[in-house]
Amino acid sequence: MDKTIYFDNAATTFPKPEDVYIALNDSNRDFAVNAGRGSYKLAKEASAIIDITRVKISKLFNFSKEDHVIFSPSATIALNQIIGGLDFGGHKNVYVTPFEHNAVMRPLSHVNESKDINILEIPFDFQTLELNINQLKVDFSINYPDYVFLSHVSNVTGLILPISEIINLAKEYGAVVILDCCQSAGLIPIDLKNIAADFFVFAGHKTLYGPFGIGGFIYNSNIELKKYITGGTGSDSLNLDMPNSYPAKYEAASPNITAIAGLNAALNWINKTDIENIKLKEQKLTKYLIEGLKTIKGIKLYLPGDLQQHTSIVSCNFPNYSPDEIGMILDEDFNIAVRTGFHCAPKIHNLLGTRVLGGTVRFSVGYFNEIEHIEYLIKRLREI
Amino acid sequence: MDKTIYFDNAATTFPKPEDVYIALNDSNRDFAVNAGRGSYKLAKEASAIIDITRVKISKLFNFSKEDHVIFSPSATIALNQIIGGLDFGGHKNVYVTPFEHNAVMRPLSHVNESKDINILEIPFDFQTLELNINQLKVDFSINYPDYVFLSHVSNVTGLILPISEIINLAKEYGAVVILDCCQSAGLIPIDLKNIAADFFVFAGHKTLYGPFGIGGFIYNSNIELKKYITGGTGSDSLNLDMPNSYPAKYEAASPNITAIAGLNAALNWINKTDIENIKLKEQKLTKYLIEGLKTIKGIKLYLPGDLQQHTSIVSCNFPNYSPDEIGMILDEDFNIAVRTGFHCAPKIHNLLGTRVLGGTVRFSVGYFNEIEHIEYLIKRLREI
Repeated sequence: MDKTIYFDNAATTFPKPEDVYIALNDSNRDFAVNAGRGSYKLAKEASAIIDITRVKISKLFNFSKEDHVIFSPSATIALNQIIGGLDFGGHKNVYVTPFEHNAVMRPLSHVNESKDINILEIPFDFQTLELNINQLKVDFSINYPDYVFLSHVSNVTGLILPISEIINLAKEYGAVVILDCCQSAGLIPIDLKNIAADFFVFAGHKTLYGPFGIGGFIYNSNIELKKYITGGTGSDSLNLDMPNSYPAKYEAASPNITAIAGLNAALNWINKTDIENIKLKEQKLTKYLIEGLKTIKGIKLYLPGDLQQHTSIVSCNFPNYSPDEIGMILDEDFNIAVRTGFHCAPKIHNLLGTRVLGGTVRFSVGYFNEIEHIEYLIKRLREI
Repeated sequence: MDKTIYFDNAATTFPKPEDVYIALNDSNRDFAVNAGRGSYKLAKEASAIIDITRVKISKLFNFSKEDHVIFSPSATIALNQIIGGLDFGGHKNVYVTPFEHNAVMRPLSHVNESKDINILEIPFDFQTLELNINQLKVDFSINYPDYVFLSHVSNVTGLILPISEIINLAKEYGAVVILDCCQSAGLIPIDLKNIAADFFVFAGHKTLYGPFGIGGFIYNSNIELKKYITGGTGSDSLNLDMPNSYPAKYEAASPNITAIAGLNAALNWINKTDIENIKLKEQKLTKYLIEGLKTIKGIKLYLPGDLQQHTSIVSCNFPNYSPDEIGMILDEDFNIAVRTGFHCAPKIHNLLGTRVLGGTVRFSVGYFNEIEHIEYLIKRLREI
């Protein structure tokens, strides 16, 4: 095939909706000025787009405090702000799932170098990927949870984690919960009225179908987050401290107005297409993919026991070839783009037993994949 | 005028060269994938653009270690990484100029809350804006400098600071020097062979004429910068620490490939246009602007005594109107975009005496301004 068949949507969705490209180009050309820093029309236009996008993110999460939607250049920066801003004084028990990304694990590991924290793993079954809730109850009762970090969806297995079960239990201990929605926002409905997490982290360029350069978090907590990233805010400039108002307190630097305009267009597209339709299409494609993969002799699929709790990410391994070799063959011989290796998720490979195998081959489908792409993929995989 | 006359180029240059818009649009559509995370062609194409851009930044600074060019989402993040990564253990004397931006002052102020640091101001004359080198010699001899933060160009007055004089003196004490090149890179030739600073910070969207979403720093030092922002790097994923190699060590998160592609196009444009020609055009426009402003009765201009040490940023105040009022009139009545207030620079207004005046009106010209814009501006200012 001339054109790349793209199955790396968990890394970043590609392509984006046409409206996103148009918004990016238009905003670059028409009002890519320093929003909120100037009092002139173009700056106000840029500020208005930021405000509108904040409202749309709030609505997507059924959240009512728009000023507590904090924009960051990426989910990684957002997680650094959160982890760098939490109080790790005294002894703290920090629970993580085995599915966490290095955007969570590395900042925690960094904190661990200078603070007295105990990083504990929430127990999941290695075969069904099911939460062991009874064991977790025991664990929490022995080491009370202070902070709980949860991936909403695993970027390796596509598992939708039973977040409510974990959060409800964590909240019995008054734990602060940080939910990583990078692989779920815009794909799975998230209703903040029903999910008692304190921080919801999102990445613009993944399941939200927006561009690089914009992410952030929803600050749904009464706890005080210390500042971690500081700088100019275009307001209160004589004050050497950050302004006390939300969101300015956590938004240093010139806002990336074009990335926000792109995200705004992506949110419009999600609303227009409807989140249920996006999910349905991706589910249909994923079902087809899994059925196809199952026909390949010797393949090992790392899927949840309950496929109702699964999105559009499928990890697997093939006999006789390492993940990297499969990736290389698919790319060089067939122009199929997949991701191979450890996928920036350091812990899950212990659970899956894929550490020694060099990780997995990951196929992640997006809304712009078609059945034909999957047919082509399966056909080629059979030839290997 | 229908179209906005834009004089806020110090906030962000606008418009950008046409080639930058084309590169942004093309990269968004053609290869906005997760560079370096995948082994497939599109990811390699994206990685190649990043490598090429790194080389071009190196060349711009006459620097030979491309892998020590660190990309960040913005200059603010870069400064947080540097200031958050420096060792402030024990007592440290930190010198700043009165021209520093809040991207420097607020992170330093943040450090000051928990560490024993002494923030000292490098002495400048309030009328000529000239460095008082004799006083600085005395200051350094009493309080040895550990860290010295220098704006290369003031974002309020356009003053080109005598950085070599300060750096040479600071280096006699073995101080670590951080040079903020946000208002100079791409406009003033910077030769690292002749400037002994340890860190050079750049912003893609200002004098480099690139897009929002990309900045960074050149790591030209033997001192070890601790990690401050951590996360996935697409490599060495099982390692909970950041990789030890440059630049990966300081580059967490998916790279913003489209912003980098835009910066790459901007660097091509700078090379093609020639940095000397950019400077000459901006100088000519600025000279015309200053001459025009001087004809306005009662105006107070905050210019360096030596206009050879000046770029394209002019701050001033008008009789009978506050800076904000002038800004509002120019915007609403004449569609002229200027910046008013304190410009995220908290200390300079003490020197200029503009604290009580509500800051200044700042006109900052860019390569895409024309003489006609300035004629129009001066004409309108005369009517106020």
